[in-house]
Amino acid sequence: MSDDEFLIAPDPKDPRLTERVEGADQDGNPITTSVTVERPLTLYLNSQEIVTMMSICDYPEYMAVGYLVNQNMIRPGDQITGIDYEKDIDTIVVRTAGETDFEDKLKKKTLTSGCAQGTVFGDVMESFDNVVLPKDAIIKTSWLYTLMKKINTRPSLYLEAGAIHGCVLCQRDRPLLYMEDVGRHNAIDKIAGYMFMNDIEGGDKIFYTTGRLTSEMVIKAVQMEVPILASRSGFTAWGVDLARQVNMTLIGRARGKRFVVLAGQDRIEYDAAAADAEGEPPALKRKGAAE
Amino acid sequence: MSDDEFLIAPDPKDPRLTERVEGADQDGNPITTSVTVERPLTLYLNSQEIVTMMSICDYPEYMAVGYLVNQNMIRPGDQITGIDYEKDIDTIVVRTAGETDFEDKLKKKTLTSGCAQGTVFGDVMESFDNVVLPKDAIIKTSWLYTLMKKINTRPSLYLEAGAIHGCVLCQRDRPLLYMEDVGRHNAIDKIAGYMFMNDIEGGDKIFYTTGRLTSEMVIKAVQMEVPILASRSGFTAWGVDLARQVNMTLIGRARGKRFVVLAGQDRIEYDAAAADAEGEPPALKRKGAAE
Repeated sequence: MSDDEFLIAPDPKDPRLTERVEGADQDGNPITTSVTVERPLTLYLNSQEIVTMMSICDYPEYMAVGYLVNQNMIRPGDQITGIDYEKDIDTIVVRTAGETDFEDKLKKKTLTSGCAQGTVFGDVMESFDNVVLPKDAIIKTSWLYTLMKKINTRPSLYLEAGAIHGCVLCQRDRPLLYMEDVGRHNAIDKIAGYMFMNDIEGGDKIFYTTGRLTSEMVIKAVQMEVPILASRSGFTAWGVDLARQVNMTLIGRARGKRFVVLAGQDRIEYDAAAADAEGEPPALKRKGAAE
Repeated sequence: MSDDEFLIAPDPKDPRLTERVEGADQDGNPITTSVTVERPLTLYLNSQEIVTMMSICDYPEYMAVGYLVNQNMIRPGDQITGIDYEKDIDTIVVRTAGETDFEDKLKKKTLTSGCAQGTVFGDVMESFDNVVLPKDAIIKTSWLYTLMKKINTRPSLYLEAGAIHGCVLCQRDRPLLYMEDVGRHNAIDKIAGYMFMNDIEGGDKIFYTTGRLTSEMVIKAVQMEVPILASRSGFTAWGVDLARQVNMTLIGRARGKRFVVLAGQDRIEYDAAAADAEGEPPALKRKGAAE
């Protein structure tokens, strides 16, 4: 394993991302600990204010573009002519060449059960019937175990300060894009933005998340055209239903050598006896800080 | 400990709340497991459609009222004249005697970093300066340990199917209101609705959550006027800042006998040596399913 495997990953040593604060422990003894810093970021698409997000703001450009892509406010082929991040006023402006039709869409929102700003527009749901995820994509169990080990040992804000979600776009046993944020949707949007701006396809990828496999999560993966979604967390019924509808492989409750697959089992190649996989050392267990 | 301690709690045996689904384990062996069922619920205040929420819908009336209270669309003293839950069309209508001024508020939303629909209206933030939480409220460490044990051993959807958040309103070492939901905000809203409809005060209570201590969480606790907020998860910097501003006691990373307090330490009475507290048996560890 080499750090170079990751095309992009969190930088837990960035002083903007965490803050040292004083407090006390269970015996009343003074302690100093790190906490994650969330900041507002107001997103404009051209001259239209879209939303204010709370984020760690480590990759505002990717997050802004990914948000617009995931909301279908920017579509494949749309040309981005500029992105201006104004750090001092917590504002980012994405400029496009053509007109967009997002204003109508702002009228029909559905709030989803995942994390904040989990708004999915009606037409995302409507287009679900047309989705065909590649059937020949596979995931070997040995890849899954390797990925989880690489992700869990990689220095991260999670290990530094906790209370954060992580998402990783992977190819075979290689983690490519590792993004963290206070809101899971922000981490996803950052990955979607990076994919859009660097022409990365989802069809041969595996999406790993620390978060639950809800309907929103499945919808986001469909939008990225990623056929395999894996998580250390659990499932909701609607998440499972949607994954089955679009023939997505849905792997959850992945901890150490254990996991459960509730949709698309045919993409799994069981090449590693579970008994061969390493147990999860206690220090690497995600302590649920991002719950 | 008696079940009667809880005024209200989840009913994991309610067949509407979970679904049995088939899948496979890490060796490819077929399994059947429970997953949480999320449903849409569209909320109307009088004739105005407000929002569609994804929820387990175990207590739709409390959730609806709590949502409106937490968004300041219903205020103390407002009279609720009727609540109609139409299960077959996933709709709930809350009727009030007077007019409300929520329409203006719908225009100034800030999305927060917590869970879905985490919209906080501007005037909530503005009223923050006027909040005075009771200074004489206390929490004994022995209460905290007892509460966590009672909550973690209580039959719950979490233990049944995972992928769910839990919130508990407590008084001394007694858990009173235990609500779960796919979105943490829903669980909070159900508690807020129960409190509103049953005239329960927050000033002498402790609010326990499985979720992170974000700005949104602190704001919700302030709205409920609860001076002590405890969680097994971690903190964000803004959550800590806000708690200090309003002199709230903020306890996080509470696992077994360990915890960290980052605001309002003066309300804690260290009456239990941490060494006396029971360790957290592995089976009771929240596996992060609600991350």
